[in-house]
Amino acid sequence: MLLARLTSRRVYSSIPKLRQISTATSPTMKLLYPTSLKLDVQSLEGFAPTLHPYDVKKPIPDEHTDAEILVTWCNSADNLKDAAKKLGNLKWIQSLAAGPNDVLNAGFKGDVKVTTGSGLHDHTVAEHALGLLLAGARRFDEMRDYQVQKKWPGHLGGPQPDRPKDRFTTLRDAEVLIWGFGNIAKTLTPLLTALGARVTGVARSAGVRDGVEVYGEDRLPELLRKTDALVMILPGSDTTLNALNAERLKLLPNHAWVVNVGRGTSIDEDALVDALEKKEIGGAALDVFKTEPLPESSRLWLAPNVIVSPHAAGGRPQGAEDLITYNLRRFLAGQELRNLVA
Amino acid sequence: MLLARLTSRRVYSSIPKLRQISTATSPTMKLLYPTSLKLDVQSLEGFAPTLHPYDVKKPIPDEHTDAEILVTWCNSADNLKDAAKKLGNLKWIQSLAAGPNDVLNAGFKGDVKVTTGSGLHDHTVAEHALGLLLAGARRFDEMRDYQVQKKWPGHLGGPQPDRPKDRFTTLRDAEVLIWGFGNIAKTLTPLLTALGARVTGVARSAGVRDGVEVYGEDRLPELLRKTDALVMILPGSDTTLNALNAERLKLLPNHAWVVNVGRGTSIDEDALVDALEKKEIGGAALDVFKTEPLPESSRLWLAPNVIVSPHAAGGRPQGAEDLITYNLRRFLAGQELRNLVA
Repeated sequence: MLLARLTSRRVYSSIPKLRQISTATSPTMKLLYPTSLKLDVQSLEGFAPTLHPYDVKKPIPDEHTDAEILVTWCNSADNLKDAAKKLGNLKWIQSLAAGPNDVLNAGFKGDVKVTTGSGLHDHTVAEHALGLLLAGARRFDEMRDYQVQKKWPGHLGGPQPDRPKDRFTTLRDAEVLIWGFGNIAKTLTPLLTALGARVTGVARSAGVRDGVEVYGEDRLPELLRKTDALVMILPGSDTTLNALNAERLKLLPNHAWVVNVGRGTSIDEDALVDALEKKEIGGAALDVFKTEPLPESSRLWLAPNVIVSPHAAGGRPQGAEDLITYNLRRFLAGQELRNLVA
Repeated sequence: MLLARLTSRRVYSSIPKLRQISTATSPTMKLLYPTSLKLDVQSLEGFAPTLHPYDVKKPIPDEHTDAEILVTWCNSADNLKDAAKKLGNLKWIQSLAAGPNDVLNAGFKGDVKVTTGSGLHDHTVAEHALGLLLAGARRFDEMRDYQVQKKWPGHLGGPQPDRPKDRFTTLRDAEVLIWGFGNIAKTLTPLLTALGARVTGVARSAGVRDGVEVYGEDRLPELLRKTDALVMILPGSDTTLNALNAERLKLLPNHAWVVNVGRGTSIDEDALVDALEKKEIGGAALDVFKTEPLPESSRLWLAPNVIVSPHAAGGRPQGAEDLITYNLRRFLAGQELRNLVA
């Protein structure tokens, strides 16, 4: 992507007339960028559109209702509703979220293209998932509970059996199943294999991806049975609702941990708590929930061997400028955009 | 090491007489192996010595006081004192600990070689160190404190600034300084670089090791100043006592985290708590302490931003059989042993 950006700059700066000819847009074309994250705005310059900051929590200013390109990040529902009403010239929305449901549901009409921020969160979500896996294996949650009581959890330290088959205590030689095998999984996999884990994938379409054997969901029964740690990175949709249900939880070994950094809707939370209370699984480290913030009434808070993480895996787009400029170049050239969903 | 073992087996099984000729030991030579860990005893067979299990917490049985080789793991002080008194034929002790201070201080007399288990703990300690780094960056400790109160730590989740310069929130682009650059550091480094960290080392002797620039301790002042996370893997000795003292702690940036998976003696714990309370450093994740178990009176338990881990990084020797057979072969051949310290 960096190369693409460098290339685009070189090409456009050396033949500026070509750029103007190839664009099918007005010379006063406007791009609105959000102030909800720190963007290197300079790196977005050198294209035809003028660049204007806007507040994602307030109505679109009157002087910018002629904007043709809108970049979004953590916009309020009201802001998006306002934008959908006012931005009559809008042609393209670049969301920086991996799943821009907010934009898709805001009521934008006409021929407005929507592109996602898929790929901007791969590193940060993979890092968090790895952290949650290690927290489960090394029981950082239990250590903490002892620490605040000034108690030494001797049973978690000192001499330990090495890689016992009936417990999840290390990633070395662990069977890790990643359900939802997209870019985040591809970023996570080499981290896991570097630690000695064996990684298998599950996705809608089977095949070998980045050297990992990825199976269809029809193979879940046999795969779940030999899993030490299940990492869920499923998107939120009707088809993934309660994907991990009571029946599938029962297939996991009693020591298996479940990590979810995808969407909370993909787990039947009541079935999960039941499985935890009955010791049918080893534990769960969850970064996403059906309702966020997790309500005080949730059984998950105090269920045994649960780690509650407050949707902290992502939320820090990395390389947004590269994606915006890459897509801006293609938009101006009339080419297909990356991460196009609508 | 595996190759060495396979080679040794092939050579010895094809020319068994050579083995007997080359050994300067009695035909009834005995090796005592500990029952304090699960060893694949079969893989130790095929050499001249007979193999006998022993209990590391009890006196050496009378029928085995003629043993010439002793393998130790988590022996009681009394057991070792007894062994030092009774094992008159002892020629070699293979400890499975990385630092076998217990054996060295037990009073063994005469020409008894001592070899360590250095290398058997690299993976497990590196994994734990990585986990502690991520726990610090992602604040799993703070998350847990909220969870047990059924509270959602919203400030730790949702949209976050990406890689702010004044906080340690990710390993990506983080400057990690590893102080004590041996085998564990060499195992840890590729895990950190895979996550995007920049790794520098400090050790008694400077040079490039496994592609990492390792500096002498004289360079600590400039190195500490630009460190986001300091990982200490120093051995316990007079020269490393309080290596991280008040003066050096002051050189670290206010956001820097300290992780210690070496020996507790290498940190001035009072100075560390002072630095934490004054917010002179960002936090500390400690697996080792001056006194273990950490006494209830320690200020560390409740100091701000401290993670107390109960000496849990190692304690699970991996590949012990390979090391024992490798050294056994060399012992029988009269060659220099690996990990020889005395």
